[in-house]
Amino acid sequence: MPDSRPIAVDAMGGDRAPHEIVAGAVHAVRERGLPVVLVGSPRVLYESLAEHDAAHEIPIVRAEEALAMDEGALASLRRPRSSIAVACHLLRRGDVSAVVSAGSTAGIVATGKLRLKTQQGVLRPALAVALPTLPHPTLLLDAGANAEVKPEILVQFGHLGAAYAELAFGIAEPRVGLLTIGSEAEKGNKLVRRAHELLDAAPALTFAGNVEGYDLLTGRADVIVTDGFTGNVALKTMEGAVRYAFDELRRSVSESRMAKFGAFMQRSRLRELSGRLDAEAYGGAVLLGLNGTVVVAHGSSSARGVSAACRLAADLSAGGLTSRIGERISAHRSR
Amino acid sequence: MPDSRPIAVDAMGGDRAPHEIVAGAVHAVRERGLPVVLVGSPRVLYESLAEHDAAHEIPIVRAEEALAMDEGALASLRRPRSSIAVACHLLRRGDVSAVVSAGSTAGIVATGKLRLKTQQGVLRPALAVALPTLPHPTLLLDAGANAEVKPEILVQFGHLGAAYAELAFGIAEPRVGLLTIGSEAEKGNKLVRRAHELLDAAPALTFAGNVEGYDLLTGRADVIVTDGFTGNVALKTMEGAVRYAFDELRRSVSESRMAKFGAFMQRSRLRELSGRLDAEAYGGAVLLGLNGTVVVAHGSSSARGVSAACRLAADLSAGGLTSRIGERISAHRSR
Repeated sequence: MPDSRPIAVDAMGGDRAPHEIVAGAVHAVRERGLPVVLVGSPRVLYESLAEHDAAHEIPIVRAEEALAMDEGALASLRRPRSSIAVACHLLRRGDVSAVVSAGSTAGIVATGKLRLKTQQGVLRPALAVALPTLPHPTLLLDAGANAEVKPEILVQFGHLGAAYAELAFGIAEPRVGLLTIGSEAEKGNKLVRRAHELLDAAPALTFAGNVEGYDLLTGRADVIVTDGFTGNVALKTMEGAVRYAFDELRRSVSESRMAKFGAFMQRSRLRELSGRLDAEAYGGAVLLGLNGTVVVAHGSSSARGVSAACRLAADLSAGGLTSRIGERISAHRSR
Repeated sequence: MPDSRPIAVDAMGGDRAPHEIVAGAVHAVRERGLPVVLVGSPRVLYESLAEHDAAHEIPIVRAEEALAMDEGALASLRRPRSSIAVACHLLRRGDVSAVVSAGSTAGIVATGKLRLKTQQGVLRPALAVALPTLPHPTLLLDAGANAEVKPEILVQFGHLGAAYAELAFGIAEPRVGLLTIGSEAEKGNKLVRRAHELLDAAPALTFAGNVEGYDLLTGRADVIVTDGFTGNVALKTMEGAVRYAFDELRRSVSESRMAKFGAFMQRSRLRELSGRLDAEAYGGAVLLGLNGTVVVAHGSSSARGVSAACRLAADLSAGGLTSRIGERISAHRSR
């Protein structure tokens, strides 16, 4: 049964808000057939929609405040009527099927927890990011929602991630790996050594054992769990390294005419490739464990990224992500 | 005053030991003019040297045991006569100027601490890795020697790293950054929040503030400090991501004849580039804070990697790395 409720798009969040966000919403409506409402300043959004001749196509829900990109968790308390807070409120009330925001991650996480509340039985919500492995992505969580966690929380992250991977990647029994610094059970710090024992004993989880930084892009596990500090450092390190490699390559191929010719021929393939590495193409991170689907698009999202995030949000919501997580958690309550 | 003492090369440590290690030692002696002794099984090494016609060129110091690559810290206690233990013993006695090993990192760290002892005033030795930024490398430490540390230890890592960067990269006042998950002082976990305060107040350290995973390869700081768990995950994530990018690129360029032609033209430039990204080219990691210079070559080191590690070991030893660290630590004892 398709959900006819729209997706609430936080139009004021993101480095390129509101114009790229509005353009992305227009794309999602026109090209993907997804119903959308924009949340933000009506005056600003009306003008922006008018540029696309879409002023009567997409509804606006008023929110006169917004969280700045450099504002953290506390801003969600200081600004109860921010665009992300209003979007979460619409989701809580059931007026929309999901929320999409390219705003400050810390602000979205804090506002989501405050407005939507954590699902029953879930110890901590986690930010999950799909990494571009083949034949299907690898899910990394937590990518930054919780800088400090306990071993039992990492086990729950395994359940949250497995529910997501089943739904979004169509994997029957997702293999869950634990990110650490050696393949043997006794490697790592206290947190991961205890988490290893718990994961090894966890019913209804296919534990793939310890994985290392190398394994994030090799597909050795379908879901990789870690604390939000390590996960965030790893994710940003990966993004930085891929950017470095491509920058170096670009530099090296433009140094001579011969090389330029080679680069010209490869351009289309390179573009296709970098699309696979690009967060915008796969829609962004998802905040798992709240009462409702929240997709966190990259802060620098263009219209394309916002539109992809809307697609992801609609699919996860239609697939019943929240109730799938609820079922797993209630069946396997941690001690 | 050039040091005429040889470098002790652990000939039995490494995935490709002893043959590639011996070949690397032969290269270091013949092409770089560095004096070397090989530590390991005389029968095996004699045969291997004979293949290079070098049996009378490079001395052998007997060690009949060796640590396997999958053996961890405990093996250093179980095998007091391993090749790495004997090499450290030679360094402790002053018979050699430095130690080079491509063996198990955990084994080298444990053996080094046991045999060479930590330098006076140093809380914990750290593994430092030079990342291939330009115009000079960026030093990341700890890359895996200590899975758990305290804030004061991260401040000391700043001093260890600064001493290294002054000597090896010729930087007058190295900028020390703290690896975490946001640029603001209050971001991160308890460890880094406290370390931020201490680094900010530390005399004789140029604190560059918080850096993120993105910044490992941008040169935003000359030295980046972190705990050995996070550092090891970040380093391996970076290696995996660069390998992924190049594998993807190789795949994409060999898919059609036209693309193959482009790849052919770029081959020499690509090779030069990947050399910059290759641990073997810059000699490996260095264990800082022990009474003597220990260079940890990559476990899969070829002859080229071993020879580069010998060059690095000779340069650091000749530059007085250990005494430079000692001076910094005694001048700025942490509370």
